[in-house]
Amino acid sequence: MEALQFWFEPASTYSYVAAMRIEEECARAGVPLEWKPFLLGPIFAAQQGIKDSPFNVNPVRGRYMWRDLERLCAKYGIPWRKPTIFPRNTVLAARVCCAAPTGEVVRAIYRANFAEDLDIADALVLAKIVGAEPVGRALSPAVKAQLRVNTDEATRLGIFGAPNFLVGGELFFGQDRMDDAIAWARRDA
Amino acid sequence: MEALQFWFEPASTYSYVAAMRIEEECARAGVPLEWKPFLLGPIFAAQQGIKDSPFNVNPVRGRYMWRDLERLCAKYGIPWRKPTIFPRNTVLAARVCCAAPTGEVVRAIYRANFAEDLDIADALVLAKIVGAEPVGRALSPAVKAQLRVNTDEATRLGIFGAPNFLVGGELFFGQDRMDDAIAWARRDA
Repeated sequence: MEALQFWFEPASTYSYVAAMRIEEECARAGVPLEWKPFLLGPIFAAQQGIKDSPFNVNPVRGRYMWRDLERLCAKYGIPWRKPTIFPRNTVLAARVCCAAPTGEVVRAIYRANFAEDLDIADALVLAKIVGAEPVGRALSPAVKAQLRVNTDEATRLGIFGAPNFLVGGELFFGQDRMDDAIAWARRDA
Repeated sequence: MEALQFWFEPASTYSYVAAMRIEEECARAGVPLEWKPFLLGPIFAAQQGIKDSPFNVNPVRGRYMWRDLERLCAKYGIPWRKPTIFPRNTVLAARVCCAAPTGEVVRAIYRANFAEDLDIADALVLAKIVGAEPVGRALSPAVKAQLRVNTDEATRLGIFGAPNFLVGGELFFGQDRMDDAIAWARRDA
């Protein structure tokens, strides 16, 4: 079975919903999973000329998203608290996900941001959540370069938001397309 | 059972996918359906300051959408041909949907636009598709006013794209949320 790549950004609310479910859903379907953290900031800047979340730039869409997140988290039994800062600066958090691309680390960072309202921009907060070791490695030039490679690859893939599922060269955008992506991975099974 | 309102715009590709399925899915679930045509143009202009489809304004997102539409139509067995003009001017088509808000009329207009590549901006084309009578009524000031009322109501509801499902005061955006909206309509059933 070919792997499904989960392309996510720690600041992205809809990525949170998908991140909390993807490992379990892939395991259930027998689909190998690869965690692919990237940054939306450079992509939004290049494609839309904005320096903020599109949900802040268009507050009508933002109001919908916040209500939708409550509903989605209730639907899937995922804890939710609207963060007091949005979007948080996720450069270091995304680097930590590059340094330790595991479900445990990714989910811990998302829970901190969207269930516990902790400032995941802060290295001390991150170290408390996932341990000092991956945060230390995240500060290295090698991991910095890896995140840049991922973000460049996201751009090349035609990514314009998050989360995304990439399987067999097919991109699926949005948490609500997880099932379609998993079905695509299993299409010859 | 309370009614589910389907808020759609004849120019919207994702509305097409939903429009072809919504009546059957509501019938299966025993949920009454109300067709609510509106125009996205004034909403995009007011919220985003653009005079074109967001899929044209951001071509990266546009490329994804066209591929996604092929996949979605294949998934649901819906005919699909990429229109040579996008978006088409849908003022008259949306008025026809106001004049005759039935599944038969709405689906015929969508099929013309997205399966037959016909110019639904043209009154003669519309008359061929749905008959002269509803097109004649669509030209009246009363129907013109009705479409404006719908678009104003869409704005008031916090709509920022299409399609949408409104049920019990809850708005669900995107064709992939049809099941969630129908489940919401049935939540006390």
